[in-house]
Amino acid sequence: MQYTFASRMEKTPRSFIREILKVTQRPEIISFAGGLPNPALFPVKELAETAEKVIVEEGTAALQYATTEGHPPLREWIAERYKKRLGLEISPDEILITNGSQQCLDLIGKIFINKDSVVALERPGYLGAIQAFSMYEPKFSTISLTSEGPDIHELGQVLDKDKPCFFYGVPNSQNPSGITWSRENRKAVAERLERAETVFVEDDAYGELKFRGEQMPSMKELIPELTVMTGSFSKIIAPGMRMGWICAPTPILEQAVTVKQGTDLHSNILSQRIISRFLANYPVDAHIARISAAYESQCDCMLSAIQSEFPEGVSYTRPDGGMFIWATLPKGYSSMELFDRAIKKDVAILPGLPFYTDGGGSDTVRLNFSNSTPERIEEGISRLGQVLREYLKETPELHAA
Amino acid sequence: MQYTFASRMEKTPRSFIREILKVTQRPEIISFAGGLPNPALFPVKELAETAEKVIVEEGTAALQYATTEGHPPLREWIAERYKKRLGLEISPDEILITNGSQQCLDLIGKIFINKDSVVALERPGYLGAIQAFSMYEPKFSTISLTSEGPDIHELGQVLDKDKPCFFYGVPNSQNPSGITWSRENRKAVAERLERAETVFVEDDAYGELKFRGEQMPSMKELIPELTVMTGSFSKIIAPGMRMGWICAPTPILEQAVTVKQGTDLHSNILSQRIISRFLANYPVDAHIARISAAYESQCDCMLSAIQSEFPEGVSYTRPDGGMFIWATLPKGYSSMELFDRAIKKDVAILPGLPFYTDGGGSDTVRLNFSNSTPERIEEGISRLGQVLREYLKETPELHAA
Repeated sequence: MQYTFASRMEKTPRSFIREILKVTQRPEIISFAGGLPNPALFPVKELAETAEKVIVEEGTAALQYATTEGHPPLREWIAERYKKRLGLEISPDEILITNGSQQCLDLIGKIFINKDSVVALERPGYLGAIQAFSMYEPKFSTISLTSEGPDIHELGQVLDKDKPCFFYGVPNSQNPSGITWSRENRKAVAERLERAETVFVEDDAYGELKFRGEQMPSMKELIPELTVMTGSFSKIIAPGMRMGWICAPTPILEQAVTVKQGTDLHSNILSQRIISRFLANYPVDAHIARISAAYESQCDCMLSAIQSEFPEGVSYTRPDGGMFIWATLPKGYSSMELFDRAIKKDVAILPGLPFYTDGGGSDTVRLNFSNSTPERIEEGISRLGQVLREYLKETPELHAA
Repeated sequence: MQYTFASRMEKTPRSFIREILKVTQRPEIISFAGGLPNPALFPVKELAETAEKVIVEEGTAALQYATTEGHPPLREWIAERYKKRLGLEISPDEILITNGSQQCLDLIGKIFINKDSVVALERPGYLGAIQAFSMYEPKFSTISLTSEGPDIHELGQVLDKDKPCFFYGVPNSQNPSGITWSRENRKAVAERLERAETVFVEDDAYGELKFRGEQMPSMKELIPELTVMTGSFSKIIAPGMRMGWICAPTPILEQAVTVKQGTDLHSNILSQRIISRFLANYPVDAHIARISAAYESQCDCMLSAIQSEFPEGVSYTRPDGGMFIWATLPKGYSSMELFDRAIKKDVAILPGLPFYTDGGGSDTVRLNFSNSTPERIEEGISRLGQVLREYLKETPELHAA
């Protein structure tokens, strides 16, 4: 039987990461390819207690249909957290609970993207966003990500010429690059967006996982009326319950509620209540501090292993938070080739190609440090260093070119 | 600030039901407007025990990212249930776990609908489907629903002329009408669809809640390669966890997995594991039988109250399952006017208009019987009968016309 699918299906390739992760799931493989939080830091005991209590004490309300917007106490906690952490004045009414922050991207795509609309992205940009937005058949215009944040000149050109329906970015410890936008860069981006009256989608999945450096102002602080924030409990509690949120100015939030309702009515109310009660009853700051400290030490372990094991010519970022280091091979070398060579030594990396919408990035590599012990990190980076040295040695003409 | 939204937002009105339900939530109101299952039948104690056990015993696996397709034992249970209940041979690989069956409709829309594609629906058709599909900007062609099922002549015309990308229907105890398609009607529909090679989306939300009459063959049995089934745990366990599934031939299921991944990665794995363990450890057939028996008695209570209280000229369906009775006023009378009159007597009904995509149905009413006690049903229908008699008496010219 031949089925006829919508044209968007041609533009929505099955996830590259997904296919690669299948190869890397053999237990003997040391994998830096994935993007999983460290499960040893999940508050398992606390969540088990909380789950039972929620059902016993909140009864049928935790199991019945619920409002699309989400559980009010959870929306209040999120608004208060924005106040405490970033000094933002957010009303709980500006929060919509979603199925993880991935669903925020889908809902935002639905609200804003017409076929052939332009969406502006960082280059490299977050793969999950590229996948979500692609379903609405936009064109992508990308803005080079420097060590300070998006290139301001390129941003100006894209805003003037392409009139994007929004600019999507991850200002804190970006996935995949680990780069955090500088204070000056944020101000310059905000000014350009304000002038062009263009919406910014601020994906803040990693803001709570900042383990060094000063707290930067949120784009929401700089251009509140133009900023839609997305947030997630995946990195600070656990991802399996798929709980995130959109925070947006009221006219945008109303549209998000409308499409959320048509999409799946509302998010899992049992899990909303479990998370809400967990946040109310346990010391969350201490819990998040423990995760950040663990990731800092895993990151530093990987950075120091890279420094001693990687050959000259391979550059890499030094993240201030999040879960990823981003490496760039010498010009002409291929991260797909590196993947093939590394997997033979039972180490997995993620080639950076899928983070580019223009076919670029063939020399880039994403390395995840959050889901490996220091021992595995040292062993894996040591093997990877050896693979890299051999690759560079065997094909010196590339290096010289 | 003026925001520019995608064109689909103009076609996705905020739910009519949602707005009406706001008016009807005052506790003194007897509401037949909603569509909630009876929470007194939720297995609260069993789910509380199960939730704690799942987290304690399955640990981080219940909280970490999981596969898009869903929890394998849950997919196996669903496949086995199809075998047991409907005699269908389904592989667990043909099942994708979703956020309630509402998300099935969104994913199916994404997979099949291009802007201006034709989607064929029953008339009246399920409002949630109209909302989900509308986001992909189709045109709707509707097929009158007779007491036997869709009008076969109209179906033939729509298939020939409009070439719909699929036909969506609810063959068992439909929402809103309560109608179950007859055996002959199913065969005729299947034959027409097969001839036109058109996909059928079989929404089976109420199949387990059949409380009388013979079991009908699933459309999946008649045209397996052309049928995509949607299912839900909302009516047989509880809706708050938002758990449903798509069952589709492999080429379609693969597309569904791809879009599900971009949409929200995967469904809540904690709730998948809770439901899976609940199904394995408790007598599910007895539980479902208890729900069906309760709904049968609530339905019969409403039918008998209607028979004694409603004036002549108001017709209504006699469901064999599900949660709704569908009434039609005498020609020329308006269910919006009836809503306004009834709410003054603290009774809420749902006007049938939003179940029509062509502006029709102004004389139709949906009455929910699953979420009211027999006492409330009798009192509510008695008040409604009085309101109806007054309405018909005050405007006899309509009745005569």
